[in-house]
Amino acid sequence: MAENKFLLIPGPTQIPNRVLTAGAQPMVSHRSGEFVAIFNELRENCKSIFKTKEEVLIMTCSGSGSMEAALINFLRRGDKVLAVSVGNFGDRWRDIAEAYGFQVDYLSFPWGQAADPQAIADKLAADVNKEIKAILVQHHETSTGVYNPLPEISRVRGDHPALLMVDAISGLAACPLEMDAWGLDVVVASSQKALMTPPGLSLIGVSQKAWAAAENSDIPKFYLDLKKAKKYAADGQTPFTPAVSLVYAMNEAVKMIVEEGVDQTIARHYRRRDVVRAALQAMGLRLLADESCAGGVLTAFYTPENIPPKALTTAMNQSYQVAMAGGMGKLKPTTLRFAHLGYMRDLELAAGIVALEMALLANGYSLQPGAAIAAAEGVWGRQ
Amino acid sequence: MAENKFLLIPGPTQIPNRVLTAGAQPMVSHRSGEFVAIFNELRENCKSIFKTKEEVLIMTCSGSGSMEAALINFLRRGDKVLAVSVGNFGDRWRDIAEAYGFQVDYLSFPWGQAADPQAIADKLAADVNKEIKAILVQHHETSTGVYNPLPEISRVRGDHPALLMVDAISGLAACPLEMDAWGLDVVVASSQKALMTPPGLSLIGVSQKAWAAAENSDIPKFYLDLKKAKKYAADGQTPFTPAVSLVYAMNEAVKMIVEEGVDQTIARHYRRRDVVRAALQAMGLRLLADESCAGGVLTAFYTPENIPPKALTTAMNQSYQVAMAGGMGKLKPTTLRFAHLGYMRDLELAAGIVALEMALLANGYSLQPGAAIAAAEGVWGRQ
Repeated sequence: MAENKFLLIPGPTQIPNRVLTAGAQPMVSHRSGEFVAIFNELRENCKSIFKTKEEVLIMTCSGSGSMEAALINFLRRGDKVLAVSVGNFGDRWRDIAEAYGFQVDYLSFPWGQAADPQAIADKLAADVNKEIKAILVQHHETSTGVYNPLPEISRVRGDHPALLMVDAISGLAACPLEMDAWGLDVVVASSQKALMTPPGLSLIGVSQKAWAAAENSDIPKFYLDLKKAKKYAADGQTPFTPAVSLVYAMNEAVKMIVEEGVDQTIARHYRRRDVVRAALQAMGLRLLADESCAGGVLTAFYTPENIPPKALTTAMNQSYQVAMAGGMGKLKPTTLRFAHLGYMRDLELAAGIVALEMALLANGYSLQPGAAIAAAEGVWGRQ
Repeated sequence: MAENKFLLIPGPTQIPNRVLTAGAQPMVSHRSGEFVAIFNELRENCKSIFKTKEEVLIMTCSGSGSMEAALINFLRRGDKVLAVSVGNFGDRWRDIAEAYGFQVDYLSFPWGQAADPQAIADKLAADVNKEIKAILVQHHETSTGVYNPLPEISRVRGDHPALLMVDAISGLAACPLEMDAWGLDVVVASSQKALMTPPGLSLIGVSQKAWAAAENSDIPKFYLDLKKAKKYAADGQTPFTPAVSLVYAMNEAVKMIVEEGVDQTIARHYRRRDVVRAALQAMGLRLLADESCAGGVLTAFYTPENIPPKALTTAMNQSYQVAMAGGMGKLKPTTLRFAHLGYMRDLELAAGIVALEMALLANGYSLQPGAAIAAAEGVWGRQ
């Protein structure tokens, strides 16, 4: 009886033993020097992962809480925002903005495709009065596996004053991201993805331009007040009791990434992507995203006609301890998501490939057993 | 070299090994049956600790986040609230309410004393138009160690329609609380106090009357939207990724309390209170709160004149690995707080007593060595 799952889902991801052990250390006061030392080390290392010199705030909440924080800290009531959606989490930007009564200009693209920078350029060009105060976009869209072209989106913004707010929750450290070089104003991330830490912490990198905008924000907030978080961060603390054990854990996980080098971590994710894409294609399955925009986080694919996704996930889970994610929103009835995110030995992907192949066979799908693994080996064997 | 502190602070408290181990288990998907089973078990056990039949929501945020959630989910913009303050966290109710533009009627009592139900009765009697929509009060005030008379406060409310919202963050399972029997509408608690779990989760019990009020709330919210949390809780889930490892941990901790019986857990806290009060008085120290309103969480005391609190905490921490809490707000220059909260073998209090005695002696204070322990033994030895 296996107690550990092969977690091939886009978070929570598997936790390295170093991180589990760090998270199980005895408590200290969050106002003690011991905590401050750990928190400051974590803050510095997070900056290097975000590729920024700016403050990266660490909040005790899920990533959605920090997406909300981005909107309510750097904007004013009723501001206009351009919500760029390529999937379920793009729609979340819109939903949060609507919950607060922002004017939302919703620019959506077919699920499985990346945002088109030219369409964003057109929106900004039409905004002659510079009413758009923020562009909301995903770095990597978790529902589809698509990696958006942020450098191009930043470039088409040109000198339009809108803040560029980026949900990098699933993509940080799995797809390239350079907060400062790309001119990103707010970058939100989360502990339970490539950062290999249990859920409960989120991260927010904030540019000087966004901090200046925060001075004019008139939206009520308390727990998600980022100016307060920034003030406390200067002393290595948080305004409210943080998730101390998760701070321990994330500090260890982030150290592991810094030791490896974040670019190497990302390269490993893309290699896994190539393995999974090759294997799925060898099974004759159709992939949702084109390679040109497929990120390092997960590979979404259509299940064969007449085989509902749920039949496959149930079989993989019950027989082989493999957890693979269903599709989201409108893709739920037709797709699965094979995540290759976070901490795993690369050959754990073989478990996912084999489990999927056997689940397909058990559901009457016709394929050549072993061909998918052969395709994967082709990628693994590359220099 | 000791790596573990004696944590005699009002949170984070010490974590039992059972709980540390539970929190270090491998991740599962928060949408999996495995998670749902654990979450439902935790939800049921929390109800028995709150002594309620109502839903107890579990949120990934600190207690202050859930205090904010109470205000923004069950009230309308600009509502009038009666903020009853007996210390620093009573003032927090006021501060959150003011951040949202509520009309705040602020009723404060001297720090170290409990709220006077008659003064609340007078406020409610004067409110002939029933404009007060909520009474905000602490169950136990962490800055002073005072336990408020909630049954009497509930009684004087009579048939006034105001919701009774209670911050039980530090007091739950350390001081008596009966949500349903006392007619409490919203009860907020937190993982890192008597619940013996690392910080990062908070809990909110909600009455049917409060849920009815939520239908009329017009205040924007997203992450802290409790109606959404309730909807997901019915399926054993949360709207956003919860702190999975802390859910594991808290489930184990809450089981430990249920195994012991929450009344027994509370009784142990009051016995520890009696030990600490006797020991401090034997050292000739003046206690902040009278026994009649002193709760089971912590005992605040004045340091001797000419001995600043910081000199004592530094000595205790550096020489004896004892972490004791400083005073808060206006009590910071003159008091310390000796917490007897959460998981500890009762004789760990002896470490606190000895460390304090030695720190006092080292700072030139005159006392009879051993007398405090003798007084403590007098309490421990009682049948």
